[in-house]
Amino acid sequence: MTNVTVHPAWLPAGVWRPIGSRRVRVDVPGTVRDEVEAAVAAHGGELVTSGDADLILTLAGPAHHGYAIVREQRATTVTAATHAGLLHGLFATVRMGESAFTPGPRVDSAPAFPRRMLDHWDNVDVHPVMGQVERGYAGGSLFWSAGALRTADLPRIRDYARLLAGVGINAVALNNVNVHATEARLLTDRLAEIVLLAEQFRPYGIRVHLAVTFAAPMLLGGLDTADPLDPAVRSWWALTLAGVCERIPDFGGVLVKADSEGQPGPFAYGRTHADGANMLAEALAPYGATVHWRAFVYDHRQDWRDRSTDRARAAFDHFTPLDGAFADSVIVQVKHGPMDFQPREPVSPVLAAMPRTRLALELQATQEYTGQQKHVCYLAPMWSGILGFRPRGDDGPPIAGTVAEVVAVANTGDDPFWTGHPLAQANLYAFGRLAWDPTLTPGEILDEWITLTFGADDGTRAALHAIMDDSWRTYESYTAPLGVGFMVRPGHHYGPDVDGYEYTPWGTYHFADRDGVGVDRTVATGTGFAGLYPYPWSEVFESLADCPDELLLFLHHVSYTHVLRSGRTVIQHIYDTHFDGVARVAAARERWRRLRIDPDVHARVAALLDEQLRSAIEWRDQINTYFFRKSGIGDAYGRMIY
Amino acid sequence: MTNVTVHPAWLPAGVWRPIGSRRVRVDVPGTVRDEVEAAVAAHGGELVTSGDADLILTLAGPAHHGYAIVREQRATTVTAATHAGLLHGLFATVRMGESAFTPGPRVDSAPAFPRRMLDHWDNVDVHPVMGQVERGYAGGSLFWSAGALRTADLPRIRDYARLLAGVGINAVALNNVNVHATEARLLTDRLAEIVLLAEQFRPYGIRVHLAVTFAAPMLLGGLDTADPLDPAVRSWWALTLAGVCERIPDFGGVLVKADSEGQPGPFAYGRTHADGANMLAEALAPYGATVHWRAFVYDHRQDWRDRSTDRARAAFDHFTPLDGAFADSVIVQVKHGPMDFQPREPVSPVLAAMPRTRLALELQATQEYTGQQKHVCYLAPMWSGILGFRPRGDDGPPIAGTVAEVVAVANTGDDPFWTGHPLAQANLYAFGRLAWDPTLTPGEILDEWITLTFGADDGTRAALHAIMDDSWRTYESYTAPLGVGFMVRPGHHYGPDVDGYEYTPWGTYHFADRDGVGVDRTVATGTGFAGLYPYPWSEVFESLADCPDELLLFLHHVSYTHVLRSGRTVIQHIYDTHFDGVARVAAARERWRRLRIDPDVHARVAALLDEQLRSAIEWRDQINTYFFRKSGIGDAYGRMIY
Repeated sequence: MTNVTVHPAWLPAGVWRPIGSRRVRVDVPGTVRDEVEAAVAAHGGELVTSGDADLILTLAGPAHHGYAIVREQRATTVTAATHAGLLHGLFATVRMGESAFTPGPRVDSAPAFPRRMLDHWDNVDVHPVMGQVERGYAGGSLFWSAGALRTADLPRIRDYARLLAGVGINAVALNNVNVHATEARLLTDRLAEIVLLAEQFRPYGIRVHLAVTFAAPMLLGGLDTADPLDPAVRSWWALTLAGVCERIPDFGGVLVKADSEGQPGPFAYGRTHADGANMLAEALAPYGATVHWRAFVYDHRQDWRDRSTDRARAAFDHFTPLDGAFADSVIVQVKHGPMDFQPREPVSPVLAAMPRTRLALELQATQEYTGQQKHVCYLAPMWSGILGFRPRGDDGPPIAGTVAEVVAVANTGDDPFWTGHPLAQANLYAFGRLAWDPTLTPGEILDEWITLTFGADDGTRAALHAIMDDSWRTYESYTAPLGVGFMVRPGHHYGPDVDGYEYTPWGTYHFADRDGVGVDRTVATGTGFAGLYPYPWSEVFESLADCPDELLLFLHHVSYTHVLRSGRTVIQHIYDTHFDGVARVAAARERWRRLRIDPDVHARVAALLDEQLRSAIEWRDQINTYFFRKSGIGDAYGRMIY
Repeated sequence: MTNVTVHPAWLPAGVWRPIGSRRVRVDVPGTVRDEVEAAVAAHGGELVTSGDADLILTLAGPAHHGYAIVREQRATTVTAATHAGLLHGLFATVRMGESAFTPGPRVDSAPAFPRRMLDHWDNVDVHPVMGQVERGYAGGSLFWSAGALRTADLPRIRDYARLLAGVGINAVALNNVNVHATEARLLTDRLAEIVLLAEQFRPYGIRVHLAVTFAAPMLLGGLDTADPLDPAVRSWWALTLAGVCERIPDFGGVLVKADSEGQPGPFAYGRTHADGANMLAEALAPYGATVHWRAFVYDHRQDWRDRSTDRARAAFDHFTPLDGAFADSVIVQVKHGPMDFQPREPVSPVLAAMPRTRLALELQATQEYTGQQKHVCYLAPMWSGILGFRPRGDDGPPIAGTVAEVVAVANTGDDPFWTGHPLAQANLYAFGRLAWDPTLTPGEILDEWITLTFGADDGTRAALHAIMDDSWRTYESYTAPLGVGFMVRPGHHYGPDVDGYEYTPWGTYHFADRDGVGVDRTVATGTGFAGLYPYPWSEVFESLADCPDELLLFLHHVSYTHVLRSGRTVIQHIYDTHFDGVARVAAARERWRRLRIDPDVHARVAALLDEQLRSAIEWRDQINTYFFRKSGIGDAYGRMIY
């Protein structure tokens, strides 16, 4: 194993004391017993094989994939129907601490989503532009290094599996959705690597998935087509995927990015995405494996002069006509917003428009557009808002009640803190917890994470809440105003460049001129995007008066002097939020400085907060100067605009 | 030799017919005789060793580095004081064609500058960002490939030397001024490669120079300092450079980019550039070799918020206080403009401010900011204007009369057409010719090049003049208006991005806001740059009324409605020139399409003209839209602005 000190994140030895110091009975062999055995060895308790115990873990229990915890005077009993459920029950007991051993009401916890999945964008080869991990900000890949599997580091991968299971994640896609030539071969002659990785994840109840290229029959199979209706293509896939499932009995399935940003897909053969996905589903269904098919399809070779094309409509226009056409074991994976993981987007209208299709909500834990794990940005409030959004109004179900599963793009790597920024661990933790129970509040999840990670006293807890609770809104305030998005440096996406994407083929524009800013996506005068939502949101978004401030420029083009629902003008809102955002970062930095905490963590975060402050000032000054130069309207409070 | 068809450029076999079909006597062995021998073999003439001849080439002649040609009824006689002079006389005879053999007045031609130098920015290793040739648009390096000398391709290097000698160039710096670790070693353990390259250039009277890193004593010598006043450092350089000169008796000298864009220099030790340059000069002077020391020194880590720093002043502020302090064999090499090879800049004020220093004027044949050898851009009109500029007004000397030499950054590589764009050959040709005689007009130089290269009939000649004569002004018209510069995509510098450098540390700004655009560099209210010129230009540039239109935004910040000397407003000028520029490119493309010419050349240029038109339209639409969005002022003629 590479010689690094790995910081333990949310399952450090200390949190095992309440269990480890007791007599525990585990009625089943495997990981649950191994974990308990290690805990009692460390804390002086006892693992008993029969008879009385303070804590009993046993297979028998609720008819769901979760667990039940019964706390009685005599003993606490954890039951589950499956070994994985029992493992989650054990970790839940860890989270409860001493209170797990105080009589109290029965806990009966079933996960909201059967699959809680993490997508790694790890490359096997180092990509010349994207590196070892595409959009990775936490060091290298845990799995591969410069073309080779990290066989010497398998123990760390098993630690990683344990960490994920500890927060309820039970599925992992191992490789990047942009599948290059080397990565394609994981499906065939490099399959042994996936077998080995699956062995690390299996003890923790995690199934592995593989991102594959739609062109595999040509690239690997020597066929001259990848047409999904061609019998030779179908038989190549059937044979190949059967081979995978036979070597990996709990293989989760495949993940496909097709006809997107240069990746091949069924369009080349005049076929639909359903044709493509169903072909794979047919091959995998006998093995209980699935197809995750991404809905991230749009024209990335737009002409900025063409005002009729709206990237925000693309997934809707491509996929909703196919509702009902996908096989049962296909999950269409939809990014949470209509564009691409901006700090603020409306919830994708696709999520409310395909009732006869199993949809996965795709979130992004890796902070591509939210500070790249250099900025503190606790994303649970954003995700919680998405999961709780009710597309049909207050009487309709929330997104959490309509999607079939949730997926996040991983933010982890071989960094000693797992996530580059130590506080970014909270995002991975929050994703797992929300995927289990989307009704948890961001505050209580953060509280759990603080306790598990820092065993925190009240001062530390208060400081971390102060720094993290609103950090996403802070990030939003000094970067993209009012939902406008994409004012970032092209390519790497870190730091401001207001016009960086304004005249490019990527379909990401703000249309700022001397009079105003924003994208008219109304039905009346714009691209019609607002009309893709069901009532009442179609009307709310269409209305300049009712549209929420934070999404105004995503949906409307307004003058700088337009008065927001907040009572401020657009231009003054831009200035105010940018000055305020920097002030909040400065305050967080001060607060962190005074904190007494593990010195390695303290030093890393302190250095990152310096960078965050520098970057926030750069954002503030560029955005303010840009809009001052365009609008000619000064700050009402006379603050410095360069 | 790598298996490519090399297009012969301006010395194809055909142009040798007038000489090759005659009786020629060469009174000296070496390249002159070899060239004539090949010519008469090809065209049926005769090389005689004594007695009568139609053409006589002999050593004895004018007391300068040029040649004389005496055309009498009986014979034409070319004389020169040196073998190199005789070679240039021979090539001059080739250029004259049949008229060399018609009685006429004596030609007595001395070069205006003793050294006519080409700087290659070739890397030995492929640089991860810059590639094999920094800012190279003509394929790979002629000298190195992926870390190794191209020993198999030495014959092509000799062809290249011949091509350069054919237009009067007599010095070549072989490697990039940004000297990385591998390239540094050319000075020591990889010196054999320079020896071998010098052998290819020597027969054509071309001396080789080497770009070195100021940190060499540390990097290669193991010293712990590179302080130019440290005795150990001085002795390391003396010893090392003596070693070079002993292996290469005609070694030209070293070229240094110090304290610039990250390259090390004397500033680190509190020493001046004169201290640094003089140390090297002392080591080289005994061998007749020189130091070229670049004046391209500025702060590339500026803060865009700091309005007091002006990059245009930097070379002046750094170097003019050192006038008189440099040793005799130091040449301070000054870029033609105060910024960095933009399509339009004022002549650098440094060129008129260091009377006691030998200055070299540095031009850029490689088209970094002028279309990257995808756009036709004949640069002789720009260079001719610079050489003819009179900093002290009409009664003072032109730049050509005050600088000691001229240098150009090479535009050549291993491309079959030598320069990527076949028509870009004309820039290399024009540089050589202007360096020999700066009073030649761009039109007559182009005419020579057309005749030598295409042996052109009148139709071809007319078409090429129409396409090329004004191509630089055409390029200027659809890119950077009124001298503003740097509205390019950061990094690679191809294509428009108006704000691409506006908030960066590179010191390259336009300050466009809703009211106006341009950089106030006046003494009265700006950075004072205008005052760095002698009278009358200090007053001309300072005056809003007198400043030439084409430099207005380089020197003044004006409103969009400011009326130019041309009578048009600034905003209308921007629109007009951008529409007009595209129209001119479209016309050139049509004209080229109808031309009957070598099919390889025709196809290559036709494809490039397609790209030029696409790119020109992109420039037009982005620049026009940007300024329309900012100014809110429409086009007077109602043309399409997106």
